Amino acid sequence: MNGRLIVFEGVEGCGKTSQIQLCQEWLQYLGISVVVTREPGGTALGLDLRRLLLKAENKTIFNTTELLLYAADRAQHVEEELKPNLEKGNIILCDRYTDSTIAYQGYGRGLDINLINVLNLIATSGLESDITLWLDVDIEVGLSRKRSSGDIADRIELEAIAFHRRVQQGYAQLQASQDKIVRIDASLNKEAVQRMIQTTLSDRLKAWGYV
Amino acid sequence: MNGRLIVFEGVEGCGKTSQIQLCQEWLQYLGISVVVTREPGGTALGLDLRRLLLKAENKTIFNTTELLLYAADRAQHVEEELKPNLEKGNIILCDRYTDSTIAYQGYGRGLDINLINVLNLIATSGLESDITLWLDVDIEVGLSRKRSSGDIADRIELEAIAFHRRVQQGYAQLQASQDKIVRIDASLNKEAVQRMIQTTLSDRLKAWGYV
Repeated sequence: MNGRLIVFEGVEGCGKTSQIQLCQEWLQYLGISVVVTREPGGTALGLDLRRLLLKAENKTIFNTTELLLYAADRAQHVEEELKPNLEKGNIILCDRYTDSTIAYQGYGRGLDINLINVLNLIATSGLESDITLWLDVDIEVGLSRKRSSGDIADRIELEAIAFHRRVQQGYAQLQASQDKIVRIDASLNKEAVQRMIQTTLSDRLKAWGYV
Repeated sequence: MNGRLIVFEGVEGCGKTSQIQLCQEWLQYLGISVVVTREPGGTALGLDLRRLLLKAENKTIFNTTELLLYAADRAQHVEEELKPNLEKGNIILCDRYTDSTIAYQGYGRGLDINLINVLNLIATSGLESDITLWLDVDIEVGLSRKRSSGDIADRIELEAIAFHRRVQQGYAQLQASQDKIVRIDASLNKEAVQRMIQTTLSDRLKAWGYV
């Protein structure tokens, strides 16, 4: 059996990390072979790139450079991590994928979305998610969750609130135009959000022949 | 006056580094404001990327990843270094540019040349060299020069000789199709090669209004 790629998307503080962990435990409980990964930084090379991209002093990275670095990270991740795990029949839970680039670099920074689509296609060689869970939360709620968790603010978080609002609008527009992107109300508590995710995924797991 | 971009190209050991240095001294002697730079690694970010690309243990970098990293390095270099210096009216001597990617990744590694052209265009936003000096030397001569200079072999040099031969053919084909690429016979001694370069550039400097 071929594996499946489940992508988690959303703005800062939407709860992706916790939900992915809970989802991993649930799938393991069901006896399904599951792998957790993320972009950027899902490979050794990607970790080096992630450090370059997120460190606070790298404010001088130009928009096009950033776009190309995310694409390089993605190309490496697809070949080294995603394709081999799909070939093994694993379920992959991936923290961010192509839609993050459209939302953050396209809607957020105003880079050409056609160009981003071209680079996404080059980097993924056409590999798309089987389902994308968009954890939708107000950006104010998300950012305050992130701050109260004690995480040190990185470059992305220091961006203006207007930027995050554009990113949020980007996700909303992507979701409106693609059936495979499922909106999850992530303003609820952790357990309620996880129940919605499991309900959504249960149908898919049956359809895919995992349960 | 707008500056000019002079690019030096060629296989390993063709003598680019020495010739660029001699050329810089000559231009300074003529009282011309000159800047020396290179790809990859012409910026602080680019230096980090260059380290990633050249370190011997990074054999697991996939072709598409490599292409995107070179493009990212280039995008940053164009915006941070080339454009500002051209605006100041400087002459730029640049060690490798877009043709290196076509020769090494396209002809050498067999990646899609149309794709490389697209990425070159994205990375440079259309900025081309005013003249490209191709230092043409037999690859055996070039590699033995490089070895005898005591440089530690990096990843690129460890590639098979067949790879370097394809790169050389790539340069030959690029030169045959573009008037602005000038072939310099780099098998001669250092002083003779520099004289040919100065002869070639003297005409251009007049045409450009520098002398």
